[in-house]
Amino acid sequence: MHLNKFVSLLKGSNFDGAFISPGTNLYYLTGLRIHEAGERLTALVVSADGDYRLLAPSLYENVVREFPATFWHDGENPYEKFAKILRELDLLSGRILVEDTMRADWLIGILKLGGFELHPLSVLMRELRMRKDDEEIKLLIKAARVVDEVFEEILSMNLLGMRERDLALKIELLIRERSDGISFEPIVASGENGANPHHAPGERKLKKGDLVTLDYGAKYRGYCSDITRTIAFGKPDEKLAEIYEVVKNAQENAFKTVRAGIKAKEVDKAARDYIAEAGYGEYFTHRTGHGLGLDVHEEPYIGPDGEVILENGMVFTIEPGIYVPGLGGVRIEDDITVINGKGKRLTKAEKELIRL
Amino acid sequence: MHLNKFVSLLKGSNFDGAFISPGTNLYYLTGLRIHEAGERLTALVVSADGDYRLLAPSLYENVVREFPATFWHDGENPYEKFAKILRELDLLSGRILVEDTMRADWLIGILKLGGFELHPLSVLMRELRMRKDDEEIKLLIKAARVVDEVFEEILSMNLLGMRERDLALKIELLIRERSDGISFEPIVASGENGANPHHAPGERKLKKGDLVTLDYGAKYRGYCSDITRTIAFGKPDEKLAEIYEVVKNAQENAFKTVRAGIKAKEVDKAARDYIAEAGYGEYFTHRTGHGLGLDVHEEPYIGPDGEVILENGMVFTIEPGIYVPGLGGVRIEDDITVINGKGKRLTKAEKELIRL
Repeated sequence: MHLNKFVSLLKGSNFDGAFISPGTNLYYLTGLRIHEAGERLTALVVSADGDYRLLAPSLYENVVREFPATFWHDGENPYEKFAKILRELDLLSGRILVEDTMRADWLIGILKLGGFELHPLSVLMRELRMRKDDEEIKLLIKAARVVDEVFEEILSMNLLGMRERDLALKIELLIRERSDGISFEPIVASGENGANPHHAPGERKLKKGDLVTLDYGAKYRGYCSDITRTIAFGKPDEKLAEIYEVVKNAQENAFKTVRAGIKAKEVDKAARDYIAEAGYGEYFTHRTGHGLGLDVHEEPYIGPDGEVILENGMVFTIEPGIYVPGLGGVRIEDDITVINGKGKRLTKAEKELIRL
Repeated sequence: MHLNKFVSLLKGSNFDGAFISPGTNLYYLTGLRIHEAGERLTALVVSADGDYRLLAPSLYENVVREFPATFWHDGENPYEKFAKILRELDLLSGRILVEDTMRADWLIGILKLGGFELHPLSVLMRELRMRKDDEEIKLLIKAARVVDEVFEEILSMNLLGMRERDLALKIELLIRERSDGISFEPIVASGENGANPHHAPGERKLKKGDLVTLDYGAKYRGYCSDITRTIAFGKPDEKLAEIYEVVKNAQENAFKTVRAGIKAKEVDKAARDYIAEAGYGEYFTHRTGHGLGLDVHEEPYIGPDGEVILENGMVFTIEPGIYVPGLGGVRIEDDITVINGKGKRLTKAEKELIRL
């Protein structure tokens, strides 16, 4: 529960309060498992004075214990109860942070209750969320261990002739056996499909000569991992074999650059420059990485515009790729944390080209 | 594509336009497969004059063809492009409908562009969405066929001793083989767990003497089905066997009540009164049903406050249940459409108590 830290941050800010609907921020702050409130108004109100209260539908009475809460029943008007909380916390006006993903119909209802100047919650929250504490790092390590284990399982399977979508499903099941589930839909991109970094696994069967990119992740008690490996069936095309080495070295280069005190964009530059010098600059079409935590994409983003200064406790991916239309692609991705001022890999699966 | 119908409805209303972010409404109106815009501003602007234009991130350029659209690239300010669309469609002020589920951070950004009076889109959209056309009914029938087939498959399995969560996963896989996937997480509630209508499948193993409630649904080209059956292992407790008959008869009673021209609440009353007369009124703790379409819960809701007048083309569930804490529960659910003025079941799986 990081609510006290958030209240401290709020006190030191020029905001008067926050309205936080269900999502990873509410879980991060309260530890309450309110993931699917659906259409029923549910929000935590926090004032910069340090007061807070949750409004929740009565069906959550068993989930919310020992937390200051007001419940509303079907048939009642939840906005009246929300207004009462705002009066009690002296928040009927002011500069208010609103959970970025709050439903518009809730916000429209809330806007009628007072005179607010609204700002997205992420402005303040990302300052907290991108700095992981030891407990969070432990969970991120466990999530990373899951995807390493799943990679070993994949390699032990009889993959030739399998459809991309069947392998994607198999990967999902292997992840679900070991964790809270997938952190995103697995990507299996074989042959020329490898040229699309976001390829949706389809009917294509894995065959001799293919490079196949596998990109998948697990959630462990809410915390996400994300790994990509590219493997070969038989002897790959010479050009693709060369591309593989370029991506592998670019990834290593970026990893070695990681240290506390530098900007995220310097890590991006290390990968990007290496790939450009090898002559493939135009084929590296995305950021080098993204932060990992309760969301699979969060701060710090590792791109050319990454101004965040890296610190101990930050966790992010390094995942350069080269995508050549009509030929195929390679991406290699590890999860990294900054510890004792240096980068440390959380994912440890083999990165030399594996030929099956 | 139901956009023309929506424009007609908008013209006849006292609204000036609508801002529609990705979700089932955008799909319903345009047929465009933009399901995961993530954090990048994506919205269809529709004016009551009949003009419309989509703003979308450039990564959707290949998905959005032959539809009036403006694209924005990473690095550009999407709100400037959104403002330009509003100027062109003369919508910098006015009474505006906003997609209920639009992200708050988008709405906060949009609110800075003009002077709007905002209302939830569902106010108008539900009028369209709850009246299915023939094409939609066909897809709903296919989605219903999937869950019937899956029920047959379940009955052919060796279920005794299986954990609830393993059966739930198996049901999910059976659905995924036959459709676009599940319309919600399957419920498997065995023994005393059956007393919780929203039980999350857990470690409990199915055993002799159990009643087991199975509640699951499929999506077929976006359209949802939803079925519940309660089955027995061996000879059930006498009380539970009696409860089963009460629920089955209540469901049949409600089904027979369905006809065009009556209010939804009359269907609810038929089930509720039957259960109350049998002495179990306090144990029927939810609505009798909900509409089905692109969303698994939509209008018309079949509850005590259901004022919608049923019409041909409406599709909804009838799913009474009795839940006795400490003992267990029974729920039986079919998908129903109104055709030629009468109710017709889309789900056809056996409703006599099956003893395995």
